[in-house]
Amino acid sequence: MGMLPNISSPPIVAATGSLRSNGTVLTLPLVAHEEIYGFGLQFFSVGQRGLKRFIRVNADPRVDTAESHAPVPFYVSSRGYGVLVDTARYATFFCGESRPKPTQPIEPQASGTAPLYTKFLGAEEDTSILVNIPGAPGVDVYLFAGPSMLDVVRRYNLFSGGGVMPPDWGLGFWYRAASNSSDKEILAIADEFRERNIPCDVIGLEPGWQTHAYSCTFAWNTDRFPAAGKFVEEMKSRQYRINLWEHAYIHPSSPLFLPMRDLAGDRGVWGGLVPDFQDPAARRVFGEYHGKNLIDLGISGFKLDECDNSDYTGGWSFAEVSQFPSGIDGERMHNLFGLRYQATLWQQFQQRSLPTYSLVRSSGALASPYPFVLYSDLYDHRQFVRALVNSGFSGLLWCPEVRDAKSEEDLIRRLQTVVFSPLAMINGWYIPNPPWKQLDRKKNNANDLMQDWHPLEARCREIIGWRMQLVPYLRAAFARYATDGTPPFRALVLDWPATPELAKTDDAWMVGDRMLVAPLFAAEASRKLTLPPGQWHDFWTGEALTGGTTLEIAASTRNIPVFVLAGSVVPLARIANSVADPTSRDLDVRVFGDGHLPFHMTTPDGEALELSWSAITRSGSVAQSHNSPYKVGKWSTDSN
Amino acid sequence: MGMLPNISSPPIVAATGSLRSNGTVLTLPLVAHEEIYGFGLQFFSVGQRGLKRFIRVNADPRVDTAESHAPVPFYVSSRGYGVLVDTARYATFFCGESRPKPTQPIEPQASGTAPLYTKFLGAEEDTSILVNIPGAPGVDVYLFAGPSMLDVVRRYNLFSGGGVMPPDWGLGFWYRAASNSSDKEILAIADEFRERNIPCDVIGLEPGWQTHAYSCTFAWNTDRFPAAGKFVEEMKSRQYRINLWEHAYIHPSSPLFLPMRDLAGDRGVWGGLVPDFQDPAARRVFGEYHGKNLIDLGISGFKLDECDNSDYTGGWSFAEVSQFPSGIDGERMHNLFGLRYQATLWQQFQQRSLPTYSLVRSSGALASPYPFVLYSDLYDHRQFVRALVNSGFSGLLWCPEVRDAKSEEDLIRRLQTVVFSPLAMINGWYIPNPPWKQLDRKKNNANDLMQDWHPLEARCREIIGWRMQLVPYLRAAFARYATDGTPPFRALVLDWPATPELAKTDDAWMVGDRMLVAPLFAAEASRKLTLPPGQWHDFWTGEALTGGTTLEIAASTRNIPVFVLAGSVVPLARIANSVADPTSRDLDVRVFGDGHLPFHMTTPDGEALELSWSAITRSGSVAQSHNSPYKVGKWSTDSN
Repeated sequence: MGMLPNISSPPIVAATGSLRSNGTVLTLPLVAHEEIYGFGLQFFSVGQRGLKRFIRVNADPRVDTAESHAPVPFYVSSRGYGVLVDTARYATFFCGESRPKPTQPIEPQASGTAPLYTKFLGAEEDTSILVNIPGAPGVDVYLFAGPSMLDVVRRYNLFSGGGVMPPDWGLGFWYRAASNSSDKEILAIADEFRERNIPCDVIGLEPGWQTHAYSCTFAWNTDRFPAAGKFVEEMKSRQYRINLWEHAYIHPSSPLFLPMRDLAGDRGVWGGLVPDFQDPAARRVFGEYHGKNLIDLGISGFKLDECDNSDYTGGWSFAEVSQFPSGIDGERMHNLFGLRYQATLWQQFQQRSLPTYSLVRSSGALASPYPFVLYSDLYDHRQFVRALVNSGFSGLLWCPEVRDAKSEEDLIRRLQTVVFSPLAMINGWYIPNPPWKQLDRKKNNANDLMQDWHPLEARCREIIGWRMQLVPYLRAAFARYATDGTPPFRALVLDWPATPELAKTDDAWMVGDRMLVAPLFAAEASRKLTLPPGQWHDFWTGEALTGGTTLEIAASTRNIPVFVLAGSVVPLARIANSVADPTSRDLDVRVFGDGHLPFHMTTPDGEALELSWSAITRSGSVAQSHNSPYKVGKWSTDSN
Repeated sequence: MGMLPNISSPPIVAATGSLRSNGTVLTLPLVAHEEIYGFGLQFFSVGQRGLKRFIRVNADPRVDTAESHAPVPFYVSSRGYGVLVDTARYATFFCGESRPKPTQPIEPQASGTAPLYTKFLGAEEDTSILVNIPGAPGVDVYLFAGPSMLDVVRRYNLFSGGGVMPPDWGLGFWYRAASNSSDKEILAIADEFRERNIPCDVIGLEPGWQTHAYSCTFAWNTDRFPAAGKFVEEMKSRQYRINLWEHAYIHPSSPLFLPMRDLAGDRGVWGGLVPDFQDPAARRVFGEYHGKNLIDLGISGFKLDECDNSDYTGGWSFAEVSQFPSGIDGERMHNLFGLRYQATLWQQFQQRSLPTYSLVRSSGALASPYPFVLYSDLYDHRQFVRALVNSGFSGLLWCPEVRDAKSEEDLIRRLQTVVFSPLAMINGWYIPNPPWKQLDRKKNNANDLMQDWHPLEARCREIIGWRMQLVPYLRAAFARYATDGTPPFRALVLDWPATPELAKTDDAWMVGDRMLVAPLFAAEASRKLTLPPGQWHDFWTGEALTGGTTLEIAASTRNIPVFVLAGSVVPLARIANSVADPTSRDLDVRVFGDGHLPFHMTTPDGEALELSWSAITRSGSVAQSHNSPYKVGKWSTDSN
């Protein structure tokens, strides 16, 4: 992609700010027909004009207030600029729904036939965005230039430090085992996956690995894991990485309790300390414990739970009135806690020159370099997808994790979605058997499996196999994220800003530069999709399609609708049980249409691979650096 | 009831406050097993210990955050005291769910078998209530003594000015007609009700009476009402009162626009002005217009809509950053707007020595004397009932209005509930025919009535008749509200604070001093009810029941479960089509058990009536003032 274009000045003028006794108020322009995107991980709407956005970390968003696991005080305008308001306070953005008072009378009418609720939020008027930041004695505002919206997002991500480049194992398949599993039970499921050819790279341990959780000790439960180091080695020898669940609240029986006691807030959570992650000393003490005791043992990542202010659940988080030794209060700490928690653990991996790819329940502004993917289990499939579409506006990654499924179809549909997401995971924390053996939670726990679960397992195996095939393609998408800030998963409007029909598409997204995913939802017989302008191919059949029209896609029980740009060269890895298997570097290449879009990829080690197709000779060519681990096998075209 | 008991001091000690750069923080004690009630109109929980309460007016409460049409910064403790924090800021009360950080380590355990999520909010520990009031440079705190919780509530209501005493017509039946009805259509429905013996005292006109609504002109639409004064007179001659819908936002074509232009906030709503109701001049100008143009025309009350900060609906309210000439900001205005709007119109009735009984979408602290009943249509039947139970803790009245009904059964159940509430109303604003003729909204609008609607009409007529019978009993309950502050509708725990099983009852309430209502909900075959200690009678059958046990009440399609205390003397008015009909003052008296609880009532004119029963002579006696309008007819006992 190279450099972003130089532009003279963004089309934003006349921003004003005023200080009030109670905080800071900003006024930013919003012109007729301008649309607004962003504000982090949003579950309810894609276009944000006309809405009031409340930037408050909240684990339980149920209404479209913008509260979320990862709200971000950053928006992108369809006019090609972005605005970041640099505050950790609970700020409110009034995106054009608040108008000045009228000043001129209108001639009275004796009668009126105007309908009730005449549209008053239409985008046809110039108005403004108001930003209310109570408690802030002034604020810094960052303006990001375009000229395109995608350029704005790229500049924001580059300003943040560039996008994360995950290790290959992070892009493989993940499974989280039942919470109270022992080492033997984990090894048994690991072996079963290998025997039954269920690809898997990462297995997650849930709270039961610790002596106490809610709050946490961060200490191995020796009943379940009598020799943790040996267990990690045994898993490693089977090509599994281990991810450990935790939250940040420190139980009084934890070895971290005394070292952290004076580095914590004045309020507790779940009977534990709340680390003052704003203080570098707290990050160091908390982080070094993890480094020496867990990362040095071979742990590859963490799942940082409950850092997302679940305070309406009843005592699951700290009060806004909390005070921290660093001088920060609970309100600001809420909007920073997830970010600083990530930084705490990431630093330990960085110091060891180890990659990680981890999970976190909360994030915020400027997070694109953080090797953490957001997750939560509280949504329906459509909300998961809408959040995935929105995540790309604000430098976030989101895992629409598979956990509850209402039916076999729902399980299949969710799994189809998650393999086209930043992190492909099934979370079985409350079931001892994989969900394809028994969807019903109670029966699963009673080991009362479905009569014949093999067909469902086979379907899941196939879908997980797709993920393994996609790893090189995803790697290339992430490589661009790291290099030029292009989000690997993003809304269609970022690529086709001039197509009004795509302005609010909330049920389809781009993966990389040439793949469009439009999932089906359980119980749908068909779905509509406005295919963006241009020439396309059905990813599965190769069928050519012309964009710019709305398709009615009949639900196939087999596949998720995926389309690739005509001309695309797409490598597909041979399916292996793990990315550690060299077979996973054996690539077959699919060529769609005339193949004029070569595929380029760089590995984290700097090894390059380029796959090109000549429409004239109808043959492919491979250019790769000397040490490239990839072998290229069969080339196929849709006319083969 | 007489005077409230003298007490030396309430059992609350060691409240502390601290000023911070960002506001005020209070710490109030909360001891083991202490329960907390109140915080205004709450839809999701009765006991509030362990919850975080956010005192913000919000028209769309969907989660148990305490946001509501009428949140109140006041709570009542089971230990017999109450606390009012006098602020209009968005305050947060942490009711025991936030604990101080732990300070002492616990001996590490090699293994742990503690379940996840071990209960950490148990009421078995002493803790505290934290109150966070960002933006407040200090705050006044009022402490209300008991000794009982009911005494606390009484003192709070008396401090507020005593409870409202509605006119009899307010306690009759209300019907709101379709929004765009003309005078002829309103008169037609009024005549139909009289002809078909559907009792009704108040008919409400919805937005279509104005030339423009959303925002409002407050001016008669002369197409629909060519002679408004004559129309009001004609309705009056049929014994109907008129209630007018409006909201406060002033359209530029309103006669109020120019007079109010400089008495309004800097932001508009629905293209209209937002009156600065905090300014007495604004209240006077806005109020006098209503007085001269509407009240003097014969209008008996108003329905004050959209004053409850429906800002997440998209532009339905004013931004918190709004500034008002009185010096108040939008945040505080939100928590005061409903109260000051009520005061504005109430003042006009007071100046004319006219009673009113009106409707409002928002209220707040110290509101018990206001002749306004809260309403909204956004709830299911259980939520309506829970709000009714909670309203009595904080000096509020709540109308669980009947509008949408899923089925005939649901309509019946909701109607049964509403006739035992502060205001018995069917809201037909979007249907031209009463719902008993056609439940389906579309068909109702097409005048496509149900095949045979007469049986459903008959059932509704009967239930509305109950309301007319209850008017004298309700009047007595309100008379106590006015005199000693006892809420006429209230939670069982206020009368039986020592019965743990009733501590969180959210589906039954007391009406007056001797009647308990336990509604059924659609599709229930039966319901459970813990009947409070003491001797009771079934209101309908007279059957004697012993309290202190949990009943399983089979659903009767005919009645709503109602129980009266043994010994109760209960007057029932003869059913008339309106309280203006003298027949409505003809009382029959029911005596339950030994009749040792005489019935006492005072009218607004100071006329007194006392009905006593002698178990020895098995006869009733009537003591009444000379001008008492009541005639007492038949006495009956359950053994008659």
